[in-house]
Amino acid sequence: MTSVLLLSCPDGPGIVAATSQAIADQGGNIVHAEQYVERATGDTPAVFFQRIEFDLAQTTSHPQFLSAFASVATALDMTVDLRDRSIPIPTAIMASKQPHCLYDLLTRWRSGELPMDLRVVVSNHPDHRGICEHMGVPYVHLPVTKETKPEQERQVLEALAEHGVELVVMARYMQILSDHFVSQHPMRIINIHHSFLPAFIGANPYRQAHERGVKLIGATGHYATADLDEGPIIAQETAHVTHRENVAELTSRGRDIETVVLARAVRAHLEHKVAVHGHKTIVYS
Amino acid sequence: MTSVLLLSCPDGPGIVAATSQAIADQGGNIVHAEQYVERATGDTPAVFFQRIEFDLAQTTSHPQFLSAFASVATALDMTVDLRDRSIPIPTAIMASKQPHCLYDLLTRWRSGELPMDLRVVVSNHPDHRGICEHMGVPYVHLPVTKETKPEQERQVLEALAEHGVELVVMARYMQILSDHFVSQHPMRIINIHHSFLPAFIGANPYRQAHERGVKLIGATGHYATADLDEGPIIAQETAHVTHRENVAELTSRGRDIETVVLARAVRAHLEHKVAVHGHKTIVYS
Amino acid sequence: MTSVLLLSCPDGPGIVAATSQAIADQGGNIVHAEQYVERATGDTPAVFFQRIEFDLAQTTSHPQFLSAFASVATALDMTVDLRDRSIPIPTAIMASKQPHCLYDLLTRWRSGELPMDLRVVVSNHPDHRGICEHMGVPYVHLPVTKETKPEQERQVLEALAEHGVELVVMARYMQILSDHFVSQHPMRIINIHHSFLPAFIGANPYRQAHERGVKLIGATGHYATADLDEGPIIAQETAHVTHRENVAELTSRGRDIETVVLARAVRAHLEHKVAVHGHKTIVYS
Amino acid sequence: MTSVLLLSCPDGPGIVAATSQAIADQGGNIVHAEQYVERATGDTPAVFFQRIEFDLAQTTSHPQFLSAFASVATALDMTVDLRDRSIPIPTAIMASKQPHCLYDLLTRWRSGELPMDLRVVVSNHPDHRGICEHMGVPYVHLPVTKETKPEQERQVLEALAEHGVELVVMARYMQILSDHFVSQHPMRIINIHHSFLPAFIGANPYRQAHERGVKLIGATGHYATADLDEGPIIAQETAHVTHRENVAELTSRGRDIETVVLARAVRAHLEHKVAVHGHKTIVYS
Repeated sequence: MTSVLLLSCPDGPGIVAATSQAIADQGGNIVHAEQYVERATGDTPAVFFQRIEFDLAQTTSHPQFLSAFASVATALDMTVDLRDRSIPIPTAIMASKQPHCLYDLLTRWRSGELPMDLRVVVSNHPDHRGICEHMGVPYVHLPVTKETKPEQERQVLEALAEHGVELVVMARYMQILSDHFVSQHPMRIINIHHSFLPAFIGANPYRQAHERGVKLIGATGHYATADLDEGPIIAQETAHVTHRENVAELTSRGRDIETVVLARAVRAHLEHKVAVHGHKTIVYS
Repeated sequence: MTSVLLLSCPDGPGIVAATSQAIADQGGNIVHAEQYVERATGDTPAVFFQRIEFDLAQTTSHPQFLSAFASVATALDMTVDLRDRSIPIPTAIMASKQPHCLYDLLTRWRSGELPMDLRVVVSNHPDHRGICEHMGVPYVHLPVTKETKPEQERQVLEALAEHGVELVVMARYMQILSDHFVSQHPMRIINIHHSFLPAFIGANPYRQAHERGVKLIGATGHYATADLDEGPIIAQETAHVTHRENVAELTSRGRDIETVVLARAVRAHLEHKVAVHGHKTIVYS
Repeated sequence: MTSVLLLSCPDGPGIVAATSQAIADQGGNIVHAEQYVERATGDTPAVFFQRIEFDLAQTTSHPQFLSAFASVATALDMTVDLRDRSIPIPTAIMASKQPHCLYDLLTRWRSGELPMDLRVVVSNHPDHRGICEHMGVPYVHLPVTKETKPEQERQVLEALAEHGVELVVMARYMQILSDHFVSQHPMRIINIHHSFLPAFIGANPYRQAHERGVKLIGATGHYATADLDEGPIIAQETAHVTHRENVAELTSRGRDIETVVLARAVRAHLEHKVAVHGHKTIVYS
Repeated sequence: MTSVLLLSCPDGPGIVAATSQAIADQGGNIVHAEQYVERATGDTPAVFFQRIEFDLAQTTSHPQFLSAFASVATALDMTVDLRDRSIPIPTAIMASKQPHCLYDLLTRWRSGELPMDLRVVVSNHPDHRGICEHMGVPYVHLPVTKETKPEQERQVLEALAEHGVELVVMARYMQILSDHFVSQHPMRIINIHHSFLPAFIGANPYRQAHERGVKLIGATGHYATADLDEGPIIAQETAHVTHRENVAELTSRGRDIETVVLARAVRAHLEHKVAVHGHKTIVYS
């Protein structure tokens, strides 16, 4: 059983020794570990972050491990998050009309490339029912209008709860989520923004990019927060463009980047490699 | 003698035929040609752009060629710009304390890689005199304070005029140029901005990037306009960064991108490959 | 009707004028044109290549145009290839067990992003029948063994002929094609090789890459020739890897590059942007 | 005093705990640590690698630390390499006629960007004496012919020894080093090869690249071994090219990649981030 510990605490000497000893004491074998110290700035003291991937003996359960680890955690004022790599995260994908990100994630899921327990696809459009059902994932169609939005969000949350979803991937879901919705899944909703944030925040970034005459377009995978385009960034990518590309062509070029970046951000989350620190992320390698 | 024609006119049928025939009529042999049509939008009619690189017989001078080409140009309401590739553009580099862009351009110039007639280096710091004089380019040191700025700009313009400069490259020159200064060299001043514009406009973009927690940093080579960071973009590039890089490391990583992007933008200009259209550029390949 | 002319002939003065005049004479309006001169080397004289995209009046048919263009073509000893952009190329995809390239092409086709007239998917495995039929493209399953290979290839060729296929895309089809097969579709079979050719020719390039300890892996989209990995290259891409990736992870990382590069190569062909010159390609921008 | 420990030993449980405890016991504060396990394959058992960056109290000297660390090292059959980040590595650059890599390294050194104790530049050409002396680094000119090669290598080795050099950077030094020379500085000579190894091994890789018609060119930074192009790879990069670039233009484009890749490889070595394992490298992040 491969386990992942995501830790953070005030920085100080001896932390790595303490955590690795606690793991060794329980018969754990560290496969990979990475730490990061956010140095002190001004009044903010230094913070220690660590991700430890380790093999645990079959005989030691996670509750047993945590109970033994508690004394270290308490002594170091440590936030502890223990995950089991053998249990993929129950996930929902939300999509609208555009298929590129959805189809890409479906393919990666079906081929076993993404360690994702895909429970349901939720969409405000009926278009993708066939492909989803063909691939063996339930499709929940919940249309939405300005008037029905609060009710539709309630239904979406219900569907997510019903399927035991712990991660929501917005695969170009074109509805702005309410603060209430986002607050139900804090740092558990991954969105793809079709620009290199913070450039071109807001609507129609490819048109904005075209009008500014930029020579690169980009995409940003990030956690959704109440302030939609301000969430912690997980992954970004850019691609070169020229004066030749019109808005439609930029949009088409952009789809490839969106697809790749969203998959990269989702993978990092599924592999328990992302820690959130304020409005920024630590993405372990 | 290889010549370059940069043309633009209202779009319509037969333009390529007319221009290429006019060149053939004068014994010119087209080596490379590229055109671009900015399609009509709303009330703005379509615009035709063309760059033609051609070998002209020794016996035909540029004035002779232009006089023969005039009838085509007039008929098509064409803007004509004829350049001679064998005469490199008289250029000045302006720098402050940071050496990376300056040294890179000096090296490319000395090795013959950049077709640039480097006439003078102007700086508000004395630091680079030795290397410049060693490389054989005059160094004009014009220190500046808040109070002396208008006078210093006057001296800089004088130095540029004295050396017959037609292109000014701001190799991390850390002074904001006045509107008056910029207006003296319209679309003849290339600046490097140390961010992926339009993200992080203004001061200390690497600090801004660090605070936002982006996963890419970038640089932008552009023509300086009165509105400094809004000039037509010539070249952009980005590089991946992680949570590990602090502001100093982002700055160091950024220097590599700045150096490469500035050299790329300057090269495009020196090879007569940039046409400005409104606040955007057409960069021929 | 947007038409594309792919031309090549011995280089000389006046060619651009002649071709653009011939188009103008027939009422054609050039939208985009690009030319390239392969300079003379040793005994090989210079060769002129041109791709012209132009709007032709509805009243002029392609045969009419070609007949009028013939005098120019003959005079210049020109190879002429006239295409109609409004008629997408009838295409077959061949796949084996791996789904990533196949699914990606299917998605791009269905969303209208690739201008491809997808007629049939041929596979030596039954796995993809469901998804293909769901998407509305016939699936021909032709299993193959060492013994049945010549017979199977005959059946594949028959299926391609039956569906009027003009372009064959090998989306990780894991069978080596016979010389006979390739010769039936010269420069009409696009293959994806899972390495940055010419490095790691042959079997299991990701294992080879891992053993050599390279820091980049790549993929190559190319026309299949009798000498399988030596065909003219259309597109290539690389991605950074580290010592951490084992062969399985390199393979997984590689799938993303393969997918993107194959789509890029196929798009260039479908948009009539590839000219083959010896064992190299000219890929118009 | 920031110290770096580079460790390797047979893999097993408790190693991280043992090393981090040993550091904590001596009052060391781990700033950054990274480990990697090369999994067992066939008869080869798993190997553990670790790089630990830690602050050590002023009162503890390196010999004291190592002596205290010895019991852990012995128990784990560990290879131990302790470095002091505050003492930059004494380095020589070797160059021939081409200036781009040399000038780039000089600039990075002078601006303090590369933590390198540059002791001497050795060249078989006289060209760079001026710039080197201007920058304040001794220049040793040792011309070489086929006949004088063994004698010249002896003189080079003498110069390196005289200046106490521990790292040799071959900045496009165009002479093939003898096995004897290389054996004097095992894994202490960094070379830049102007291709994406293992493609285009040997002479004139840009010509080879042009003849093959590749769409990417690359460069490789690696340790020099007796088999020159087979040494452990530290860094690689590629850049897109088209059919337009002739050999001279590929060479020019390539210079930018060579410069960047060599600087990246040298920086990794100077920051004690490279461990060699067989003919491969582990490059810590």
